[in-house]
Amino acid sequence: MAETPYRTALIVGAGSGISASLARALAAAGLKVGLVARDVGKLAALANETGAMTFAADASDPVAVATLFEQVDASLGEPDLVIYNASARVRGPLAEIDPEAVRQAVAVTAFGGFLVAQQAARRMVPHGRGAILFTGATAGIKGFPASAAFAMGKFALRGLAQSAARELGPQGIHVVHFVIDGAVRSGTRPDPEDRPDSTLSPDGIAQAYLAALQQPRNAWSSEIELRPWLETF
Amino acid sequence: MAETPYRTALIVGAGSGISASLARALAAAGLKVGLVARDVGKLAALANETGAMTFAADASDPVAVATLFEQVDASLGEPDLVIYNASARVRGPLAEIDPEAVRQAVAVTAFGGFLVAQQAARRMVPHGRGAILFTGATAGIKGFPASAAFAMGKFALRGLAQSAARELGPQGIHVVHFVIDGAVRSGTRPDPEDRPDSTLSPDGIAQAYLAALQQPRNAWSSEIELRPWLETF
Amino acid sequence: MAETPYRTALIVGAGSGISASLARALAAAGLKVGLVARDVGKLAALANETGAMTFAADASDPVAVATLFEQVDASLGEPDLVIYNASARVRGPLAEIDPEAVRQAVAVTAFGGFLVAQQAARRMVPHGRGAILFTGATAGIKGFPASAAFAMGKFALRGLAQSAARELGPQGIHVVHFVIDGAVRSGTRPDPEDRPDSTLSPDGIAQAYLAALQQPRNAWSSEIELRPWLETF
Amino acid sequence: MAETPYRTALIVGAGSGISASLARALAAAGLKVGLVARDVGKLAALANETGAMTFAADASDPVAVATLFEQVDASLGEPDLVIYNASARVRGPLAEIDPEAVRQAVAVTAFGGFLVAQQAARRMVPHGRGAILFTGATAGIKGFPASAAFAMGKFALRGLAQSAARELGPQGIHVVHFVIDGAVRSGTRPDPEDRPDSTLSPDGIAQAYLAALQQPRNAWSSEIELRPWLETF
Repeated sequence: MAETPYRTALIVGAGSGISASLARALAAAGLKVGLVARDVGKLAALANETGAMTFAADASDPVAVATLFEQVDASLGEPDLVIYNASARVRGPLAEIDPEAVRQAVAVTAFGGFLVAQQAARRMVPHGRGAILFTGATAGIKGFPASAAFAMGKFALRGLAQSAARELGPQGIHVVHFVIDGAVRSGTRPDPEDRPDSTLSPDGIAQAYLAALQQPRNAWSSEIELRPWLETF
Repeated sequence: MAETPYRTALIVGAGSGISASLARALAAAGLKVGLVARDVGKLAALANETGAMTFAADASDPVAVATLFEQVDASLGEPDLVIYNASARVRGPLAEIDPEAVRQAVAVTAFGGFLVAQQAARRMVPHGRGAILFTGATAGIKGFPASAAFAMGKFALRGLAQSAARELGPQGIHVVHFVIDGAVRSGTRPDPEDRPDSTLSPDGIAQAYLAALQQPRNAWSSEIELRPWLETF
Repeated sequence: MAETPYRTALIVGAGSGISASLARALAAAGLKVGLVARDVGKLAALANETGAMTFAADASDPVAVATLFEQVDASLGEPDLVIYNASARVRGPLAEIDPEAVRQAVAVTAFGGFLVAQQAARRMVPHGRGAILFTGATAGIKGFPASAAFAMGKFALRGLAQSAARELGPQGIHVVHFVIDGAVRSGTRPDPEDRPDSTLSPDGIAQAYLAALQQPRNAWSSEIELRPWLETF
Repeated sequence: MAETPYRTALIVGAGSGISASLARALAAAGLKVGLVARDVGKLAALANETGAMTFAADASDPVAVATLFEQVDASLGEPDLVIYNASARVRGPLAEIDPEAVRQAVAVTAFGGFLVAQQAARRMVPHGRGAILFTGATAGIKGFPASAAFAMGKFALRGLAQSAARELGPQGIHVVHFVIDGAVRSGTRPDPEDRPDSTLSPDGIAQAYLAALQQPRNAWSSEIELRPWLETF
């Protein structure tokens, strides 16, 4: 894996898919890695495999996020790369979905992204360097029926990413919004045998994140969409 | 003013600018009009002028919005046209803005739009007709620096509008997202004398809303941007 | 039909669909109308019905377009409203389509739009008023497979319209690009009986053009998309 | 430089900026490189430095492009990577620019891209693999005043790229449209000393092209924008 200019990565919203591939790729590239989830029990095997540290926090809670970053500073070191990967969705007709579930989905998908980006910015701005990556989705550029809450959350995350890129870029901080434009394969949802690579692979996605981190500041991308070759889009 | 197919309009987030022009235009077109604000005291003159009824409610509170629509049903009549016009913004560097203010701004700008659209949809879907209009902003299509909260809120509102348009359109409900792409003039912020029409007029905006309501269902717009002729965009 | 501020309309690329509805609507609104096609024989009935004058010209030929406008100035009067409605497409795999057919399709769809807009601008700029409307398509915002030539032409037309809007708007000329985002019904392709209004009606489209012409300069749209209520988009 | 899955690259529209950096990077990665320009005299030093072969052709001429590819097949080998980098612009008010110059600019910027992509597709489709890259510009996503011809050409190129990506992607051919969103530095236009990296570097752009070529087919980008960190966009 090629070198990145970063040393200490924090992945918020860690689980088994994209975030696991990112943890492996970043650790292989020599970075120290921290993984954040509400329930860190599920992260034990990944932490063991990659040497990552784990942290428990609710990313949509301002106090919890502030405390998280203090713990990370103290135990892992101040992160110069922060990735926001958490999201939640509510499916159902607009007339029927539960308002509290919608509020909570937007809080996890977008407000948590703001809280994490804010703590990251506080640490990166004084140094004039760092990177903040957001995992977006098709739902962030196109609002689908019966999916109002996910559209709201992922659109809001994209708005946050654009605002952050325009504000923090000239301060030396690379902000990138990834549009994951297709289904991501997993152990429980592999590709059909006759259609290899018909879904996005977490490792392929992680490779694109790493490539973005290697961009020199004279040729930065701020939004990168990814989809499998067979996807009609 | 040309006829619209609607009879009873509810404007949520009513004040002195766009919403006042809408109230006048809709009343002049023969619709019954309801005006909603947290503080209805400021609406007295407008209500008196247009014959509109006023309702006090916090649009970001699920219980308050449900109660509001019950009151509207009982006193004004079930609305077949609902306009969401409320928003809030927080300005300042990403690293410094107050998280609670950001949460509240997103709640007013976007979550309230969801709550109102949901109540509207519950009433319109059974009839297979109605219209839901959202007042968006430049911030909903481009995230500006030092304006993360407004970008999040207005992007989320646009995602909601797209999801609602794709879901409710085929059920006969016309959903339109307006992109107010420029400054709106007001009594306290008139145009410079040497640059007439250099800002958006609330009456011009209201005319565009009315024109959208007159579109036949075989040629609907779902997003309409508006800006003054002198605006570089 | 409500009044527009324009008096003399020229529709380039006239035939039986959108342009016929426009001719009727503009004539009904009191404008003098000129219709331009390569073969004006097919326009006789429409001209008779609406009182429009007809002009034969190849819109992709610079000399023919210059001559056309001189004829229009002399016989109909200088147009203060010009609508570009011509297009051509070539379907087939990228590897197989005929380059000369592609060249010609782009010439008709986009270069002709430039030639017509240029002649229009020459007449409108000195007066500081006028309107130029372009009929775009879904293909102008999304490039479809096996349709490279149409994508090239309609994308180019949209680029022209944006450039013209930004340049000519502050000179008092309203430039609008319409995205016709769906199939347009016709005598030979009516709606299925069980799905009324499932395609765009030419009259509904024409109504949207007329509504745009009535916008005050303090609240102009520069792009308006139109689709039928049942369209999934 | 990391490995790419490609062996033989053809760069059409070769000169001193982006294309020179691409030639160096691709040669360093082990690919055979062909450079195409109308005037190959200016390419001698670069060819000497990189070992690239040079070919003279007018990219906007169908016969010349067909002949070019036959020569390349015979002397360099059938290319499995083709990059279209040619463009032309005409500046000036819409009412004044010369129609023949506009026609020629669109021919070089977009029609030539079609001709080259078509020849590339004919060679790549039978093998089910290959890559076609297009060098776009800000002008391809936003039409600027007094720049109608460049907007038309670069919009058309983007439409072509989208159509080609959707058609050829599922046939194993990776099509990418790069949006070069800022000024590119050159020997005659270096960065100001007090604003390092304030313009795009050709080497940084070339690195992004190479990174795209290394994407696995299960996580492809089809559009990648690049700008310097100090760019307000």
